[in-house]
Amino acid sequence: MRIDGRQAADLRPISITRHYLKHAEGSVLIEVGDTKVICAATIEEKVPPFLKGTGEGWITAEYSLLPRSTQTRNIREAAKGRLTGRTHEIQRLIGRALRSVVDLKALGERTVWIDCDVIQADGGTRTASITGAFVALVDAVNTIYTDPEKPFPIKDFLAAVSVGVVDGTAVLDLCYAEDSAAIVDMNIVMTGNGDLVEVQGTGEKHPFTKAQLAEMLTLGERGIAELIDYQKEVLGELSWKVGRVP
Amino acid sequence: MRIDGRQAADLRPISITRHYLKHAEGSVLIEVGDTKVICAATIEEKVPPFLKGTGEGWITAEYSLLPRSTQTRNIREAAKGRLTGRTHEIQRLIGRALRSVVDLKALGERTVWIDCDVIQADGGTRTASITGAFVALVDAVNTIYTDPEKPFPIKDFLAAVSVGVVDGTAVLDLCYAEDSAAIVDMNIVMTGNGDLVEVQGTGEKHPFTKAQLAEMLTLGERGIAELIDYQKEVLGELSWKVGRVP
Amino acid sequence: MRIDGRQAADLRPISITRHYLKHAEGSVLIEVGDTKVICAATIEEKVPPFLKGTGEGWITAEYSLLPRSTQTRNIREAAKGRLTGRTHEIQRLIGRALRSVVDLKALGERTVWIDCDVIQADGGTRTASITGAFVALVDAVNTIYTDPEKPFPIKDFLAAVSVGVVDGTAVLDLCYAEDSAAIVDMNIVMTGNGDLVEVQGTGEKHPFTKAQLAEMLTLGERGIAELIDYQKEVLGELSWKVGRVP
Amino acid sequence: MRIDGRQAADLRPISITRHYLKHAEGSVLIEVGDTKVICAATIEEKVPPFLKGTGEGWITAEYSLLPRSTQTRNIREAAKGRLTGRTHEIQRLIGRALRSVVDLKALGERTVWIDCDVIQADGGTRTASITGAFVALVDAVNTIYTDPEKPFPIKDFLAAVSVGVVDGTAVLDLCYAEDSAAIVDMNIVMTGNGDLVEVQGTGEKHPFTKAQLAEMLTLGERGIAELIDYQKEVLGELSWKVGRVP
Amino acid sequence: MRIDGRQAADLRPISITRHYLKHAEGSVLIEVGDTKVICAATIEEKVPPFLKGTGEGWITAEYSLLPRSTQTRNIREAAKGRLTGRTHEIQRLIGRALRSVVDLKALGERTVWIDCDVIQADGGTRTASITGAFVALVDAVNTIYTDPEKPFPIKDFLAAVSVGVVDGTAVLDLCYAEDSAAIVDMNIVMTGNGDLVEVQGTGEKHPFTKAQLAEMLTLGERGIAELIDYQKEVLGELSWKVGRVP
Amino acid sequence: MRIDGRQAADLRPISITRHYLKHAEGSVLIEVGDTKVICAATIEEKVPPFLKGTGEGWITAEYSLLPRSTQTRNIREAAKGRLTGRTHEIQRLIGRALRSVVDLKALGERTVWIDCDVIQADGGTRTASITGAFVALVDAVNTIYTDPEKPFPIKDFLAAVSVGVVDGTAVLDLCYAEDSAAIVDMNIVMTGNGDLVEVQGTGEKHPFTKAQLAEMLTLGERGIAELIDYQKEVLGELSWKVGRVP
Repeated sequence: MRIDGRQAADLRPISITRHYLKHAEGSVLIEVGDTKVICAATIEEKVPPFLKGTGEGWITAEYSLLPRSTQTRNIREAAKGRLTGRTHEIQRLIGRALRSVVDLKALGERTVWIDCDVIQADGGTRTASITGAFVALVDAVNTIYTDPEKPFPIKDFLAAVSVGVVDGTAVLDLCYAEDSAAIVDMNIVMTGNGDLVEVQGTGEKHPFTKAQLAEMLTLGERGIAELIDYQKEVLGELSWKVGRVP
Repeated sequence: MRIDGRQAADLRPISITRHYLKHAEGSVLIEVGDTKVICAATIEEKVPPFLKGTGEGWITAEYSLLPRSTQTRNIREAAKGRLTGRTHEIQRLIGRALRSVVDLKALGERTVWIDCDVIQADGGTRTASITGAFVALVDAVNTIYTDPEKPFPIKDFLAAVSVGVVDGTAVLDLCYAEDSAAIVDMNIVMTGNGDLVEVQGTGEKHPFTKAQLAEMLTLGERGIAELIDYQKEVLGELSWKVGRVP
Repeated sequence: MRIDGRQAADLRPISITRHYLKHAEGSVLIEVGDTKVICAATIEEKVPPFLKGTGEGWITAEYSLLPRSTQTRNIREAAKGRLTGRTHEIQRLIGRALRSVVDLKALGERTVWIDCDVIQADGGTRTASITGAFVALVDAVNTIYTDPEKPFPIKDFLAAVSVGVVDGTAVLDLCYAEDSAAIVDMNIVMTGNGDLVEVQGTGEKHPFTKAQLAEMLTLGERGIAELIDYQKEVLGELSWKVGRVP
Repeated sequence: MRIDGRQAADLRPISITRHYLKHAEGSVLIEVGDTKVICAATIEEKVPPFLKGTGEGWITAEYSLLPRSTQTRNIREAAKGRLTGRTHEIQRLIGRALRSVVDLKALGERTVWIDCDVIQADGGTRTASITGAFVALVDAVNTIYTDPEKPFPIKDFLAAVSVGVVDGTAVLDLCYAEDSAAIVDMNIVMTGNGDLVEVQGTGEKHPFTKAQLAEMLTLGERGIAELIDYQKEVLGELSWKVGRVP
Repeated sequence: MRIDGRQAADLRPISITRHYLKHAEGSVLIEVGDTKVICAATIEEKVPPFLKGTGEGWITAEYSLLPRSTQTRNIREAAKGRLTGRTHEIQRLIGRALRSVVDLKALGERTVWIDCDVIQADGGTRTASITGAFVALVDAVNTIYTDPEKPFPIKDFLAAVSVGVVDGTAVLDLCYAEDSAAIVDMNIVMTGNGDLVEVQGTGEKHPFTKAQLAEMLTLGERGIAELIDYQKEVLGELSWKVGRVP
Repeated sequence: MRIDGRQAADLRPISITRHYLKHAEGSVLIEVGDTKVICAATIEEKVPPFLKGTGEGWITAEYSLLPRSTQTRNIREAAKGRLTGRTHEIQRLIGRALRSVVDLKALGERTVWIDCDVIQADGGTRTASITGAFVALVDAVNTIYTDPEKPFPIKDFLAAVSVGVVDGTAVLDLCYAEDSAAIVDMNIVMTGNGDLVEVQGTGEKHPFTKAQLAEMLTLGERGIAELIDYQKEVLGELSWKVGRVP
């Protein structure tokens, strides 16, 4: 039994509230246990210089912790004047993961800005950001999808979850207390058809075996399938457009 | 009649949710019409260098807009690497306003960090920040107030509101659409006993007369009295401690 | 009687030296008591992006203290790599105040850069900057005013002064020693026809009453009228062009 | 057959030159095909604040590309004034990987700075950095290992390699041309006893299957075993100290 | 005959006004033709880390151009957020030059900050800064020289001048128009007893011969002797203390 | 006899390896005693704004020390976020020196970026950078020199050396140990026909006499002639193109 009463393969309670912000083209509040992230998707009618004239679009992501989302206050990166290495890493991960399921040609010469702002942090903020941002992205892309003769620019579902090894046992969706005690910390991003987009496992405190890796992958696959089921439920009819090719 | 159906002297609907964040010593979500701000108060057991050894404490404030709180996405200051002049101005205003009602000696050698993060912006974000931060501050200070023989470190209530002149008429608590149309834009901060802490009026688009200034001050005074009544209601029994001297 | 022998409503001795710098389109040295500021106005034949193609011009201001203008040396902002909040606030105030009396359409697509560099500081540097910069601005704008059939781009005079409450009495034009002792510190900017452009009063150390506000406004109005008389004297014949509409 | 004539499971020619720099406690030039990296290890007799007084040491890494190590010149990060996200990610990876095989208690309150400077880049610079830095680290740590009654602070060997899927086939140790064509790009770090320290796989251009992941892990394991054999050969007698517990 | 009517070996008119700033320990306005620089010397009772506990002091210099000291407005380095290479070079030169005539042991553990702010630029701002700063330094050091049994911390006089080759002729003390036309530009710093402290000659537009170098050195020596005579006149009785050893 | 057995007028052993980097248009490794610098020359088909449309090209240089090129590790400028004054000075010197022998018109609207990265430092890194960069520049320029009817863009040879006064004697090409002990430190840059491009002598620790200056110039001239002979040998047939006018 885990610190919060869950079994090894249990996700925490999850909730995604769509249309959370008045001004954004797509936005959600995602809550995974006590972790809460606002994910906003903004459509901008231009692309970075390396894509000009190619007809292709781009997805880019930014991530931030509110100063008091964490147990002790973390200093604002705007006040420090620069992003930490951790933020850079997470922003790049979110952008890469979302791009893997977007048909950038079908998107057209547009940039979608994904903003993930963590209101409250209790472990798994980067995976919650990906899972929530996917839903905001679908809503935002839908506002520019006007021609049903064309493929919908989002090709497949996408969600992410953390797995780890705590007290010798592989567990799913670690809260902060578990995360601190884990010897391995791994983040997995998968698509709706069960393929891998990212696998990032780190055994800084303790190297891990191939057997443990296999166990964690199995748990992660199962968790992501549940998360994608929930995304479909939340998106309702709109979920049918994902992957649609006329 | 105003754009949203209010009379000149009407405030927008207001709501303050206490204990909004799990980790902070004090925190609220304040909603004023469509403007929503998370205000967190953090107690740190040290002071800036200029106060070391004086026995006095300090209050300092930081303010930020989420990128998609606004109609068009605003670039993250952390990405730009520096704060805008507007942010500097607002942060200094919030800190100064709160310090005016705090007995820094009674606070002791501690810093209270006030973080105001705007989730959604529809005019009046700086005044909503002050009104909400006051409540978060009372909650935070209460966690360290252990000796009833001593004065409570907060001496009086404090709230803020905007006033302006739109279409030749002075109006209270401007929403964004009114703000854009106003010839004068003024922010007023007052205490529970009706004294002024800040008066900041700007007639960039059109200088204003002393008569208009007087009208705006009258509206502001009335609005702040209402806001302070609501703060008292929200704080409940805790409101009795404000200004308490044994 | 005040620390330097003045009455409550007395300004300090003032002097404005026009054409102080060889290269600038307009420049003055303004001395207000021991406060000395060099104000330069530079005409640039382009505008910020948001004004391109509109036919309108812009006024922007920068402000700086020489390191040893102050009692103890202040660290150069260029060495720190960023502007302080105080500098941001003052720069924005100066720019906003000057723009309020300029007909930006008549100015045409040009930017006027106002540089206020404080050589010696003894209180009131921001108000001296505004009062001096106005004269430099008139000189600079005059160099591009070639068609007498068109309105002169400066619509009215403009000056600024500080007021405050020291030892319970409202006083005009505070020197540094008074500023440090004041419970309220207020800056007022007014036009030649007596309208208000900015009112910024702060009672950080002590909230103030509406009666004190009224007293300070009265003093400020009187001081600004004197300052504008002096600006007219200094500008001589050129002063007739201000506000001129053919 | 691959672009450079190798089989899928072949490493490129590798060479590690020890004592490459005159001043550093440990330093190597590692060449992996056309990729060349100078790795230096510096012992500093102090630790970051969070370790003061704990008796434990720290390993931290920095990584940089010379401007003309790459096909087109890359702009110096010192000139830009900040590190890119890619650099942050790589530095964190190198530091984390090395720390996983170091007994930080046995190291004592010291920091080892690892500097990896890429002289010439042809794919796999981050994995070459780890493999080379490990040897420099052993040399550096040996300079402070004076008491044979104590465990040698490095517990196990460590090397890293890239794997990927090119034209549907899993291949080992990708050169730049292969890297650009790969649908999956994965970096693996393993210890001498065959445990995993890092697994980072990204399918931005194309999600990948679990079968492909398994194939890549098998190739990576084989390549790392070869690399560690070569490290032992290069270190000669010194290799016996690694993992030594008296 | 030169552009401003001078002979090849003529200095421009020079004037040094002592005690120019109210607050600084030493300060002058130096005018060399149309070049005007405010030089301030500030005594700080601490030293940089590398001198702590050595009993020695330090001299450090900062240099800045007011934005409109130059023909076209130069952007403030504080606004850019960093110093240009030119400013770095000049600051280092001024500091090094002044330190060469100061007995840092006799100064004691203090830092003298030299601030050179160019009000108006017409060539030779760095050499005027050195010549003026020397006088400000003597005044500042004199405020802490209380024990006549000890050597005065300034060992010798110091001044600087520019020389160059214009239209094939070596000339002394170039104004801006000459500087732009010169094929060689050289700055010379010398002491009161005729020794060289700095020789910096650059022939970017045209290499120069050893004969031209010799001519320029002769002119420079002569100019510096005149400047030092003027410094002595300006310092009056205080000039006797320079180089004084009891 | 000097610390490393040389006579006063002896250079250290020198070696220049051409084509050191695979990707650069020109690149060398220059070794002068224990000082080792990689110099790369990159051709970019555009020029800075101030040269657009003029038909002229530009040469710009960047310089950096690897962190462990020095006896104690020096902090990376990329990590500090800004260049030191020393780096600025050296970069400007290298660029200026190389431009003095380049026919920027014949180069055409192109920029040559010179990157000097010090791998190991033992005194004289800036002069080695110039001497090595010259060879890399010739190789790079040769790749774009296609029309033998036009002048070769490099007009003359160029090399640099340090001289100084150690223990009262002028010596050539100081190693680090001598540099630290020298009372004067001078860098000289000269062309193939014996003209001076830069003379920079500093007597911070001790002013120097004109006689010492003359001695140092003589030594420097002799050393540079030897260096240029070696450059010619290394460039082989290509050396005939330097200065070639059809």
